[in-house]
Amino acid sequence: MKVTLMHGAGGEVMGEVIDIVSKITNKNAGGIGLESLDDGAVIPIGNSQVVFTTDSHIVRPLFFPGGDIGRISVCGTINDIAMMGGKPIAISCGLVLEEGFEFEDINRIVASMNDALNESGVALVTGDTKVMEKGSLDKVMINTAGIGVVETVVRDCGLQVGDVIIVSGTLGDHGFAVLASREGFEFGDQIISDVAPLSGMVQEAMKAGCIHAMKDPTRGGFASAINEMARKSDVQVRISEEALPIRSAVKSASMLLGIDPLEVANEGKVVMGVKAEDAEKILDALKSHKYGKDAAIVGRVVSGKGVIMETAAGGERFIETPLGDPVPRVC
Amino acid sequence: MKVTLMHGAGGEVMGEVIDIVSKITNKNAGGIGLESLDDGAVIPIGNSQVVFTTDSHIVRPLFFPGGDIGRISVCGTINDIAMMGGKPIAISCGLVLEEGFEFEDINRIVASMNDALNESGVALVTGDTKVMEKGSLDKVMINTAGIGVVETVVRDCGLQVGDVIIVSGTLGDHGFAVLASREGFEFGDQIISDVAPLSGMVQEAMKAGCIHAMKDPTRGGFASAINEMARKSDVQVRISEEALPIRSAVKSASMLLGIDPLEVANEGKVVMGVKAEDAEKILDALKSHKYGKDAAIVGRVVSGKGVIMETAAGGERFIETPLGDPVPRVC
Ligand SMILES: Nc1ncnc2c1ncn2[C@@H]1O[C@H](COP(=O)(O)OP(=O)(O)OP(=O)(O)O)[C@@H](O)[C@H]1O
Ligand SMILES: Nc1ncnc2c1ncn2[C@@H]1O[C@H](COP(=O)(O)OP(=O)(O)OP(=O)(O)O)[C@@H](O)[C@H]1O
Ligand SMILES: [Mg+2]
Ligand SMILES: [Mg+2]
Ligand SMILES: [Mg+2]
Ligand SMILES: [Mg+2]
Ligand SMILES: [Mg+2]
Ligand SMILES: [Mg+2]
Repeated sequence: MKVTLMHGAGGEVMGEVIDIVSKITNKNAGGIGLESLDDGAVIPIGNSQVVFTTDSHIVRPLFFPGGDIGRISVCGTINDIAMMGGKPIAISCGLVLEEGFEFEDINRIVASMNDALNESGVALVTGDTKVMEKGSLDKVMINTAGIGVVETVVRDCGLQVGDVIIVSGTLGDHGFAVLASREGFEFGDQIISDVAPLSGMVQEAMKAGCIHAMKDPTRGGFASAINEMARKSDVQVRISEEALPIRSAVKSASMLLGIDPLEVANEGKVVMGVKAEDAEKILDALKSHKYGKDAAIVGRVVSGKGVIMETAAGGERFIETPLGDPVPRVC
Repeated sequence: MKVTLMHGAGGEVMGEVIDIVSKITNKNAGGIGLESLDDGAVIPIGNSQVVFTTDSHIVRPLFFPGGDIGRISVCGTINDIAMMGGKPIAISCGLVLEEGFEFEDINRIVASMNDALNESGVALVTGDTKVMEKGSLDKVMINTAGIGVVETVVRDCGLQVGDVIIVSGTLGDHGFAVLASREGFEFGDQIISDVAPLSGMVQEAMKAGCIHAMKDPTRGGFASAINEMARKSDVQVRISEEALPIRSAVKSASMLLGIDPLEVANEGKVVMGVKAEDAEKILDALKSHKYGKDAAIVGRVVSGKGVIMETAAGGERFIETPLGDPVPRVC
C-alpha cells in the first residue's frame, strides 16, 4: 500500500498510519500516552505533570492572510498544550530547508515565530537545522515540539451527558484563507486565517468554570474534533446549525467550492464541553478575550452515539468524521 | 543570500542560520536555553530539572548498514539528552511522508524505532503525521523531540585545565557507512554505522567518576565537537593522533575519498572531558559497556586556545572546525 495525501489530512484515513505507530511497545511514560491519541501526552515528573506535544508544519503558501508558517508552527504546539489544560513553557524548532531558500524568508518566519512566542510568554530553547538538496523538499518544513505544566488535565474524552458544547469563534477561517490565497479567489471580504496562540484565553476559561473536554479543531475541522470527542466519551452530541458561527465570506466560499466549512482546519479555535451550569460564565470569559469575541454555545451532550446536526430547517442529519481535511497542506 | 547544503551540515556555516534563530527574544525558560547552543535545553519544572531537545532526520539511504532512519531518529534525541547528563523519558515523532511512500517501509522504520526505544527504556508518547505531494519531499523526514530529567547537568563548556579527553569508541563509522552504502563503495571490511542509544552507557560513566563536559560528535564529527568544547570552555585541547581509535576500513575509505574521518558524523559516540584522577575508572566503565568497547583516552586539556593534534610523526597541527560535514544528508 502507498501513502496518499489523505494519510496526512487529519481524518479517518490518517488512522492507517497511526495504527502502525501505535504498534510501539512503550507508548506511555506514566500519565497520558500515545494510546489516548489526545492533543498531547502528560508525564509525571517529580511533583509536576508535564505536557508534551509536537506538530510538523508544511503549509503552503508560506505567507497567507493573517499568518505564515512561522506563526502556525508556534501556535499549533502552544494550542495542543493548552488543549490538555496545560500552561506552555518552552518549544523546540526543527527547521528543514530546501537548498536555495532565501535567508530573507527565514528572517521573516523567525520574526513571526518571535511575535507569537512573546505574546504567549513561551521560550524557544532548542532546535535543529537541516538542508535538503534543491528539488528534495518544497521550500521549508518546521517542526515544533513543546512542553508545559498542567494542574487540572483536560481530556478530549471527558464529555458528560448534560454538558454544553462551546466553540470559541467562527469556524473555517484558516482553511478558506489558505485556499483563497493559494488559488487567488476572492469572496467579498478577504478571509483571514485565525491562527493564534490560545493558551491565555483557555487559562481564563478554565478559571471561569468546569471544562470537561477540549480539542482544537485543526485538520478535519470542527467535524473531526467533535466526532472524536463524542466517540471517545461514548456520548452523543447534538449541534444546532443556526448557532454555529461562520463568517459570510466563508459561507460563500464554501458554497462556491463545495467544501464544508466544518471540515476545514482552524488554527485559533477551541471546542469545549463544559458543565451546563458554568456555560454562561465560561462563554463570558471567552468573549472578553480578543480571540474569543465570537464564541458561542452550539450544542449539548446527550446519551447515545454520533454527532447530530439539528438543521435550520428543523431536520436532523449526522455530522460525519471527514476522511481527511479537504484542503491539502493546510498547516 | 540563499541557503546551501553547508547551512545544514553542522559546522561553521550552519552558524549563519543559527544566528537568525538566535534573534528570538525569549530563548531561556529558566535553566539552560538556546543561548548556550548545547545539545539540549534544561528547564526547572517543580522540583525537577527537565532536559528538552530535538533533531530532524533526513538521512539517505533510509536503510544503511547498521541502522536506518528510524533508529537514528530515536538515538539522536536520546543521545542529546544523555549529553546533558540527563536520563531520557519520552520522545515525540513528527513523521512527514511523501505521497507514494510504501507502508511496508513505514512498518520497517517504526519497528526499528521500537527496538531502540525498548533498548533504552524510553516511551514514544506523542507525534504528528503530514504528507507532501509526490515530488515535494524526498521520501520521508522524521523529527523527534525528547524530554528527560537530569540531576547533575553536564555542559559542553565545562572543560577544565588538567582534564583528560576520552572518546567512547572508533571515529567516523557512521559517516563512512552511509557514504559507502550510498555510492556502492567497498573498503575491505564492510563499514557499519555506530548508531546506538547511549543513555545507559553514559549513566554508568557518570557513576564511575566526574565528567566535566560531554558532546556527541554528530555532524562535523569529532573535529567539530572538540573545537566547540574547547572554544566554549576557553581552553586548549591537545589530541594524540596515535591514540585516536579509527577502524582500518575507515582509514582506507578516508584516504581514497579524501575525507577526514574526524569531520564525519558519528551516531553512537561520546566525547568527554573528565577529571584526570577519574579517567581510568570512567574508561573502564565505558569499556565494560557494549557501545564503549573501543573507548580510549585521546588527549588532555591545557590552558590556551584551539585544538592541537600531536601527530604520529612527532609534529603538531591544528584540528580546525570544519565548515560543515563533508557527507550530505548523513543523519
Ligand atoms: N507519527 C506519529 N507518531 C506518534 N503519534 C502520532 C503520529 N501521528 C499522529 N500521532 C498521534 O495521533 C493523534 C492525532 O494526531 P494529530 O496530529 O491529528 O493531532 P493534533 O496535533 O491535535 O492535530 P493537528 O496535527 O491537525 O494539529 C495524536 O495523539 C498524536 O500524538
Ligand atoms: N532551527 C533552530 N532553532 C533553534 N535552535 C537551533 C536551530 N538549529 C540549531 N539550533 C541550536 O543550535 C545548536 C547546535 O545545533 P545542532 O543541531 O548542531 O546540535 P546537535 O543536535 O547536538 O547536533 P546534530 O544535529 O548534528 O545531532 C543546538 O543548541 C541547537 O539547539
Ligand atoms: Mg490538537
Ligand atoms: Mg496540533
Ligand atoms: Mg541537532
Ligand atoms: Mg549533540
Ligand atoms: Mg543531535
Ligand atoms: Mg498533530
